[in-house]
Amino acid sequence: MPSEFDLIRRHFTRPPAHTHLAVGDDAALFEVTPGMQLAVSTDTLVAGVHFFPETDPGDLGWKTLAVNLSDLAAMGAQPRWTTLALTLPRVDDEWLTAFARGFFACAEIYGVDLVGGDTTRGPLAMTATVFGEVPPDAAITRSGGQAGDDLWVSGQPGLAALGLAALRGQVRLAGEARARALAALHHPLPRVELGLALRGIAHAMLDISDGLIGDLAHLCKRSGLAATLEAESLPLAALTATGIEPAYARDCLLAGGDDYELLFAAAPTRRARLTALARQSGLALNRIGSLDTGNGPILISLRTADGLIAQAGGYDHFAQD
Amino acid sequence: MPSEFDLIRRHFTRPPAHTHLAVGDDAALFEVTPGMQLAVSTDTLVAGVHFFPETDPGDLGWKTLAVNLSDLAAMGAQPRWTTLALTLPRVDDEWLTAFARGFFACAEIYGVDLVGGDTTRGPLAMTATVFGEVPPDAAITRSGGQAGDDLWVSGQPGLAALGLAALRGQVRLAGEARARALAALHHPLPRVELGLALRGIAHAMLDISDGLIGDLAHLCKRSGLAATLEAESLPLAALTATGIEPAYARDCLLAGGDDYELLFAAAPTRRARLTALARQSGLALNRIGSLDTGNGPILISLRTADGLIAQAGGYDHFAQD
Repeated sequence: MPSEFDLIRRHFTRPPAHTHLAVGDDAALFEVTPGMQLAVSTDTLVAGVHFFPETDPGDLGWKTLAVNLSDLAAMGAQPRWTTLALTLPRVDDEWLTAFARGFFACAEIYGVDLVGGDTTRGPLAMTATVFGEVPPDAAITRSGGQAGDDLWVSGQPGLAALGLAALRGQVRLAGEARARALAALHHPLPRVELGLALRGIAHAMLDISDGLIGDLAHLCKRSGLAATLEAESLPLAALTATGIEPAYARDCLLAGGDDYELLFAAAPTRRARLTALARQSGLALNRIGSLDTGNGPILISLRTADGLIAQAGGYDHFAQD
Repeated sequence: MPSEFDLIRRHFTRPPAHTHLAVGDDAALFEVTPGMQLAVSTDTLVAGVHFFPETDPGDLGWKTLAVNLSDLAAMGAQPRWTTLALTLPRVDDEWLTAFARGFFACAEIYGVDLVGGDTTRGPLAMTATVFGEVPPDAAITRSGGQAGDDLWVSGQPGLAALGLAALRGQVRLAGEARARALAALHHPLPRVELGLALRGIAHAMLDISDGLIGDLAHLCKRSGLAATLEAESLPLAALTATGIEPAYARDCLLAGGDDYELLFAAAPTRRARLTALARQSGLALNRIGSLDTGNGPILISLRTADGLIAQAGGYDHFAQD
């Protein structure tokens, strides 16, 4: 029986920008731009698993949508629509107001219409399903990597893991370092513009929400290739500048999850173009390694100029090094 | 960190029929048929709220998709794709095998490709988001009802509520009556073919998952009209044949939730056509009342030939009569 939940839905009813019929009927109705493919992704956040129950609801609203948009960014798709399924233990109007504010802040920035949803009672969790558009054959999948490609990563991977460690009291961070790490954790910025800019440039791409090594292993498997990472090329400086040990910083960077940066493969001929793109966009792009045909079961090797540091068949072994 | 959950995903990876790229990348890719609008809906089922935790997982897999397809049926849309977000307290291979079997049984019957999803750890819950196609201006919304329209309902509303009451020990049902009521509760049949057949015939439509009266109130509000239900026309016979009291049967029929029948408004000139449709399809269609311009705040009146039985501004009052 609705009523209370009908009231909740009103928090989430705003005039859509490009949708025939949004929240309020049995289904939403909209038209995909003629000639475009639809890219669709869904992600769930569960209290106590993906976030602390006491997380600021505004941050949570933002993140619910942002982590989903990151999947569209990773395909080179333009986000357009979303649904939201909310499961709430109780109706807390203040919490909902803040959650909706965060959710719509993200939706408006990225040009996304909320087209429908469901509100149910139960343990706190939220599932968004997002829809983007991409021209036929323009989507950047995980499987297109080519031997000899450079591997690039955007932004500062490892920051979210550092923020989580700070919240858990495992590291001490103060001032701006703490603010940056917590912002990466609570307020991730999906790299939509970068994803769009990489159409026709990146051969393969994904976001590194499961950790750089883990997701790189996915890219390698799908592309039928192996990867070599150059330890000296990893963007560790901003992490170690917070005062943490270099080895710990590298663990955060390589194995930490909850980063919504893009990892992609591109031909070496694209280096100048990518360097220019980073300069224009103000978003760091670091070339951290390359793809090769590999050698047996080893998917990923980490090297310095002096030689091999570590190897892994998959991230789960690697993360324990 | 995935791995265990990667294994789970394999339960849900089957070759899609009409999808470029399904489970396994950052997003799924597919093409909407040129000229068609997309209809999208999402519903969550939460253990302990929408189903008993010990519910047969095969039934649960079926129902997770079926209740979502019902929303597309209620728009007159042709189901095509779905995503599935699963939250599981633990990995139970036997449970997952059965759940996937039920889910795909429904998907195959209704021609739906599973295109993506997410698996997370947490309290048992499942969210499906479904995508259907409908030609422009052919979707049957809640708001198109016209004064003088007949009101029709498909199948046997009230059976699911009766099944729930039987499970709770509130009524005793035996034999086929019990089997039918539990099937309505656990294995609802979304009325997709009926929804498609009603394009161009029904002026307004919805499914009655929140109960007939509650959902009729939505249709009335959206259409700016009131409704009169004829008590003698309500399909009570199959309910009372189980041995329950007529008053209780009427409560189940009017206020019981979890029915996935369609309630729709159509012009009286369509009666012969609709009677023929019911005969051809083998699915009962009962004409139970009509829409009118109404009189003040009363949305729904229930009458017999002898006069008024009950009135309601909305279902929540009505249900308490």
